[in-house]
Amino acid sequence: MTAESAQAGKEAIGLVLVFTGHGKGKTTAALGLMLRAHGHGMKAAMLQFIKHSRSNFGEHRAARLLGLEIMPLGAGFTRTAKDIEKSRALALQLWGIAREKLASGEYEMIILDELSYPLQYGWIPVKEVIEALRSRPRGMHVVVTGRDVPTELIEFADLVTDMHVVKHPLKKGIKAQRGIEF
Amino acid sequence: MTAESAQAGKEAIGLVLVFTGHGKGKTTAALGLMLRAHGHGMKAAMLQFIKHSRSNFGEHRAARLLGLEIMPLGAGFTRTAKDIEKSRALALQLWGIAREKLASGEYEMIILDELSYPLQYGWIPVKEVIEALRSRPRGMHVVVTGRDVPTELIEFADLVTDMHVVKHPLKKGIKAQRGIEF
Repeated sequence: MTAESAQAGKEAIGLVLVFTGHGKGKTTAALGLMLRAHGHGMKAAMLQFIKHSRSNFGEHRAARLLGLEIMPLGAGFTRTAKDIEKSRALALQLWGIAREKLASGEYEMIILDELSYPLQYGWIPVKEVIEALRSRPRGMHVVVTGRDVPTELIEFADLVTDMHVVKHPLKKGIKAQRGIEF
Repeated sequence: MTAESAQAGKEAIGLVLVFTGHGKGKTTAALGLMLRAHGHGMKAAMLQFIKHSRSNFGEHRAARLLGLEIMPLGAGFTRTAKDIEKSRALALQLWGIAREKLASGEYEMIILDELSYPLQYGWIPVKEVIEALRSRPRGMHVVVTGRDVPTELIEFADLVTDMHVVKHPLKKGIKAQRGIEF
């Protein structure tokens, strides 16, 4: 083994993680990873492709307390034609920011929260995302969340968990609860 | 509707959540919930039934930074007869602490991390856990994590997500990575 390869063996391996499926826990698990990374002094950012830019959920409040970087820049899950155009523009704008952050070398972890939706809608090309992930700096972890992540991205990822719903209280008519859903 | 029932309607409904399955994301999602709860100013504690009491992972470091209460009191995943006896004693001790916290009314969220293992081993009776959950103060959320959670507890829970492994890097021979696995 050369000195170089010994050194390479000690380097952190940057993983691409996908949390998908219809069950609860995708964004929540990504938040947990962010907390864990923060505990190690790693720089992490979460870019939220759907959550509204005026979101002030538990994670946004906690982020402000901790100095974590969570950037919601979506338009929510609305579905009128005008809203869709706005959502598309915001998704593309956020993807531009994401690409810069991915390439910058300033982060040890980037979370692309609910990226699956603009991918499904065809707003952001999957190939472009995979290319940006492939050319990211060594050692950087990237986490993608959302339902129905495209197959190409699943194939490219190192770790994929499908969050499967066994039971969900919203189906029993229990409203979303503070600290759980938001 | 009486004034009382209208009031009750506004009260937070405490949920029992289970994150189970063999995929990554169980403890991590519970950490995310803890962060979210913290952002809302809710008091939360995580009791870890397996992680060693000398654990100093990302979540423990972050917890110290944030004033989050994470209490690891396990003996790790070792398997000698002596270790098993020690693990059993620690699990029972931690369950005693958990019962007190569950009954105390001081917490809005209690996370019983990897409780499924002492339940499976028969160290802690499932009935006792369900009884403690049933009689907890109104509005308190409880999260149970771990593989193979007993059916009785799944049936009792309000929200259950099964984290299903689609791909895991440890299977490809990639070592556990800082900020991801610990």
